[in-house]
Amino acid sequence: MRIANRFDLVAGAFSSDPAVAMEAGEALDIAPDRIYPSFTDMVAKEAGRSDRIDVGIVVTPNHLHFEPCRLLLEAGIPVICDKPLVNSTDEARELVRIAEKSNTFFALTYTYLGYPMVRDARARIAAGELGEIRFMYVEYLCEWLANDPSKLGKGGVWRGDPLKAGPTGALGDIGTHAFNILEFLSGKKCTALNAKLTTVVPGWGMDDTDVLQLEFEGGIDGLLWSSIAAPGHRNGLRFKIVGTKATAEWCQEAPETLLFSRLGLADLVYRRGGGDMTEDGRDSVNLPAGNPESYLEALATLYADFAQALEAGPDWRNATAVPLPDIRQGLRGVALSEVAVQSNKQRAWVAFPDE
Amino acid sequence: MRIANRFDLVAGAFSSDPAVAMEAGEALDIAPDRIYPSFTDMVAKEAGRSDRIDVGIVVTPNHLHFEPCRLLLEAGIPVICDKPLVNSTDEARELVRIAEKSNTFFALTYTYLGYPMVRDARARIAAGELGEIRFMYVEYLCEWLANDPSKLGKGGVWRGDPLKAGPTGALGDIGTHAFNILEFLSGKKCTALNAKLTTVVPGWGMDDTDVLQLEFEGGIDGLLWSSIAAPGHRNGLRFKIVGTKATAEWCQEAPETLLFSRLGLADLVYRRGGGDMTEDGRDSVNLPAGNPESYLEALATLYADFAQALEAGPDWRNATAVPLPDIRQGLRGVALSEVAVQSNKQRAWVAFPDE
Amino acid sequence: MRIANRFDLVAGAFSSDPAVAMEAGEALDIAPDRIYPSFTDMVAKEAGRSDRIDVGIVVTPNHLHFEPCRLLLEAGIPVICDKPLVNSTDEARELVRIAEKSNTFFALTYTYLGYPMVRDARARIAAGELGEIRFMYVEYLCEWLANDPSKLGKGGVWRGDPLKAGPTGALGDIGTHAFNILEFLSGKKCTALNAKLTTVVPGWGMDDTDVLQLEFEGGIDGLLWSSIAAPGHRNGLRFKIVGTKATAEWCQEAPETLLFSRLGLADLVYRRGGGDMTEDGRDSVNLPAGNPESYLEALATLYADFAQALEAGPDWRNATAVPLPDIRQGLRGVALSEVAVQSNKQRAWVAFPDE
Amino acid sequence: MRIANRFDLVAGAFSSDPAVAMEAGEALDIAPDRIYPSFTDMVAKEAGRSDRIDVGIVVTPNHLHFEPCRLLLEAGIPVICDKPLVNSTDEARELVRIAEKSNTFFALTYTYLGYPMVRDARARIAAGELGEIRFMYVEYLCEWLANDPSKLGKGGVWRGDPLKAGPTGALGDIGTHAFNILEFLSGKKCTALNAKLTTVVPGWGMDDTDVLQLEFEGGIDGLLWSSIAAPGHRNGLRFKIVGTKATAEWCQEAPETLLFSRLGLADLVYRRGGGDMTEDGRDSVNLPAGNPESYLEALATLYADFAQALEAGPDWRNATAVPLPDIRQGLRGVALSEVAVQSNKQRAWVAFPDE
Repeated sequence: MRIANRFDLVAGAFSSDPAVAMEAGEALDIAPDRIYPSFTDMVAKEAGRSDRIDVGIVVTPNHLHFEPCRLLLEAGIPVICDKPLVNSTDEARELVRIAEKSNTFFALTYTYLGYPMVRDARARIAAGELGEIRFMYVEYLCEWLANDPSKLGKGGVWRGDPLKAGPTGALGDIGTHAFNILEFLSGKKCTALNAKLTTVVPGWGMDDTDVLQLEFEGGIDGLLWSSIAAPGHRNGLRFKIVGTKATAEWCQEAPETLLFSRLGLADLVYRRGGGDMTEDGRDSVNLPAGNPESYLEALATLYADFAQALEAGPDWRNATAVPLPDIRQGLRGVALSEVAVQSNKQRAWVAFPDE
Repeated sequence: MRIANRFDLVAGAFSSDPAVAMEAGEALDIAPDRIYPSFTDMVAKEAGRSDRIDVGIVVTPNHLHFEPCRLLLEAGIPVICDKPLVNSTDEARELVRIAEKSNTFFALTYTYLGYPMVRDARARIAAGELGEIRFMYVEYLCEWLANDPSKLGKGGVWRGDPLKAGPTGALGDIGTHAFNILEFLSGKKCTALNAKLTTVVPGWGMDDTDVLQLEFEGGIDGLLWSSIAAPGHRNGLRFKIVGTKATAEWCQEAPETLLFSRLGLADLVYRRGGGDMTEDGRDSVNLPAGNPESYLEALATLYADFAQALEAGPDWRNATAVPLPDIRQGLRGVALSEVAVQSNKQRAWVAFPDE
Repeated sequence: MRIANRFDLVAGAFSSDPAVAMEAGEALDIAPDRIYPSFTDMVAKEAGRSDRIDVGIVVTPNHLHFEPCRLLLEAGIPVICDKPLVNSTDEARELVRIAEKSNTFFALTYTYLGYPMVRDARARIAAGELGEIRFMYVEYLCEWLANDPSKLGKGGVWRGDPLKAGPTGALGDIGTHAFNILEFLSGKKCTALNAKLTTVVPGWGMDDTDVLQLEFEGGIDGLLWSSIAAPGHRNGLRFKIVGTKATAEWCQEAPETLLFSRLGLADLVYRRGGGDMTEDGRDSVNLPAGNPESYLEALATLYADFAQALEAGPDWRNATAVPLPDIRQGLRGVALSEVAVQSNKQRAWVAFPDE
Repeated sequence: MRIANRFDLVAGAFSSDPAVAMEAGEALDIAPDRIYPSFTDMVAKEAGRSDRIDVGIVVTPNHLHFEPCRLLLEAGIPVICDKPLVNSTDEARELVRIAEKSNTFFALTYTYLGYPMVRDARARIAAGELGEIRFMYVEYLCEWLANDPSKLGKGGVWRGDPLKAGPTGALGDIGTHAFNILEFLSGKKCTALNAKLTTVVPGWGMDDTDVLQLEFEGGIDGLLWSSIAAPGHRNGLRFKIVGTKATAEWCQEAPETLLFSRLGLADLVYRRGGGDMTEDGRDSVNLPAGNPESYLEALATLYADFAQALEAGPDWRNATAVPLPDIRQGLRGVALSEVAVQSNKQRAWVAFPDE
């Protein structure tokens, strides 16, 4: 937000311990009367202010997304929420219902959609540069669980608790990003999947390594591999979209380039800031080519989009060049976990709900 | 063979057209009386010579492997055969039976096992450098079919004919290499698989793009993706073996290095010819570090192994540092296609036969 | 500064046109009475305020560095200044004299010193990980001038005017960064150089492509190649430090890794955020490994250092883990241009002043 | 030669010890009467045979090139010789005189000119794909001397003896390749140089690390850095040719690709075997794209050229698509060492003789 420079942090509920909340809020230069002891209190009070917050940002653990989102939406306050949206499709559908009734802005921080070269890839695919899409591969590998899970800090612990993290572990945590990026890049919806959810780390109560075979609209096949127990991978989100004319590849750990390897011809390495970027790509560039951008700038681009949409008011859905990761995407992310659990249990293909 | 410099080409059946066969044989400096009009004739005549060939090499299209292999084995002549061994497990079992009865040398040209860094990876994995194996991924992507299949030359045409190529297309052609390399690297056998065999290229009669979920001994999961319709990939065999301590990666198009990315520590890039290579790796090095080796040298290393085994006589199985790709591996490669076809038809997991 | 979050922008002289200055200042939320029509006015007024600025930041074109720096220093106000410090060593020495007399904080934004892996490299070299240094290579290649210089915007135009940019073009603009990083990494001072300054772009009045042979303390040789007319290079600062045991390489366009290629052994690829980073490296990390950092975060790290030093008061020189790019470094950067011009004219080696 | 399959080894002088020579020759299947105790004897006897050798190959240490070359040439026998040609320009000129008088085929094994992507680069540069050349950079770094030189084997020892290796160490050994490749790629001759020849390894009697500033025809500048004491570099020949439109890069340790990084546009990665190779590149391809080629295949390509030229008889100079590395190139390589020694001594620029 500081890079985007479009938001001020003016209120917050930072802890269930009022003293901790107050200290945290003061460190952020927030006026004492807007440092709240709970999100319930915060929504109630802010809703009544004439200078109320323009948007509420929900960054609690997964199982604490539903209630603040619901309260904010019912107060008509726009919401930015971490993914996954919530931990069950029932809850997700309830939020969708409330949000869509009032057309309230709702966006999820699918961070990786903010990278310029991801947007450039999407625009090139839409323009037919790959030809027809024939296959979509995505992997998302991390190593944070590979070590002894008993040594994980607080952030790790709730991620291993199904009551808090939701029905899946690695899949809900990172697989959702991977799934989302395929739908974003292709504009195609997943229609069915065959999942194998595995736990390779002893003592971890949830899936840590997942393989999903995917089917998309138009008969396109896909493959998703995600793991939080893959040594040597820090935040290894990587996709490979195979078309009839070329294959597009990108990797989050080297986000400045987009590889188009072409049928029988020289590879093209597109670069952020290049004169041949697509318009969507160029619009999300913060720095000149060569001065690398990265994770924070991607988030900043996402927040700049959010700001632009929020300023557009009721027409917020059409305010950005690239579609916002909205509450329907959030619902699909939650459905992913539920459908995958079912498929894994049955060792069989299961249809993906179209909603 | 010329690089290994351990073989002379002294006889051959080069064509079913006698004139073509003679011309080809003469161009290879073969004595006219050992240029044969058919492999049947060749085996019959060679078997009766006191200076008969030490080994017969079968490089015909897939559907013409069985008969020359059978004839050679029944004549007690060692065989080197292209993969896949044959087109059905019935035929494969028949050859296994004949070969094992007489303990005749039989090797398949699983070319990629000849690469020094593949052997180095196998030795490091065996020595526990990765810790325990947790997951095995392999992809093998080529582009040769991505274009219009009607424009393929002769080599392409028979590959698209199930009567000649066998029950699968991409899977039998390249997927077998990928499958074989996982078993070679890990020393673990596949126990079950769930395959989706797809045809993405219009007008191609067989699978061209395959995804296989794999289960191996010891509860290890794996994943195999192969395609002959992936633009920008020339001969893209690439594996990623995930262990508890590190992940090993190698790619056939850049075969000189082996990446060990370690949990929380600097990556190690092992190089062919380095002072810290394993013994198995070092034994297969042909050139000093820095003067790159590649595909032909890998084949040469395989042929040097074959020569060493052939010279060992009845004890040929124990003559090489690294296990030879033998007829049992050939049988497993054929079984792979049959099991995958069954799994694909049933959209379900199928056990892999242990034989 | 926004990422570092240690500074507020509270005053400024943004333009010589008062209306433009006022508009710019208001856009930055600066109080109207602290938006000044000139830096002269700004220093005079700020010096008299009890809440005067903690530090002045000079980001004017090169030829307008001297006067604001002088005024600030004479008012006892700390300074952060863009490099090159000024356009002649006479001016530089004058500023050194004033600054050192009063021990006033003075730092130059040698941006690339803020990269964690550059600091990690420095610490590893100091710890002897390379063995003894034997050779130092640096290249800094950009493409911004490669095209028709008549089409350059405002930022390009003054860079081509010796009266504004200083005695050299590419060397003063980017070569100084390259030179500075070698001295930073090695802790060795350059003692002599042999420069060839060339203009390859027609119509450009200054050097655009430079080669400098360098000699450093202890008899170490070095080499610097810089160009602003090298197509395909956006901001290509890259070094290679050769030691007796290993060679260290880093590249600004892929700043997250540091390569140590070792004598006869596997390469080590150190990564930002790895568990085996040096303390200096780790101290400058802003984000977890895998979420890439880049140019802005490097600047933020530098500004965080500046904040820490400014808070230390008179002992500012010892307040940071890594030595600040101080005014003496600024003087050396200016000397570099003067000595190189002399060497180029004489086509001969020239001693580098030790001051 | 075995890969090229155009030569048979039919005679040889393999050692000054007759027993060793005989043993070596027999191991190579050479008829006993053509295994000679000395090259003098060999040339004398072969010259008198009706089936005399088609070409003599000189692979002795540098100081033993002159005499066998002279004898072969005077007998009218074509010669293939290792580089550097000889150890002084006086000797080189003498060989040039003899060879050119009789128009006898004479080629040097500048191995790296055999790489398809080097030839592809040359053809693209000639076709103007880079625009005008503006700068040429080459580095050639190896590590073989970086360790204790007293532990070097036989091949190392003579390389450190000026009486055997010639006037320079690293420069004659590898710098000549680097120099040659710049002239080959650009078609431009070096006209002057400024060399610094350094010894960084204690106990080594010759230069091991060299920097040469170069000037070429047409006012093009260049830079050559070579070292045999650079840890982590096995055979690191790498060039970067900067043009007005793009920069071309290639590295011997990853020889299958050629990078064209273009002004403001996506990089192009040309691949060996691609459909868009130049004709010269394609003519030197041995294997399909994706099955990597490397060092031996490059040498094989060079030997295939030699065979083609030898078969062309007196018109041998025009028989190959790419100019052969002939005796004039050999002379220039020897001159390089002499001129560099002079420049280094004088710490000054010296003209390069045009002969």
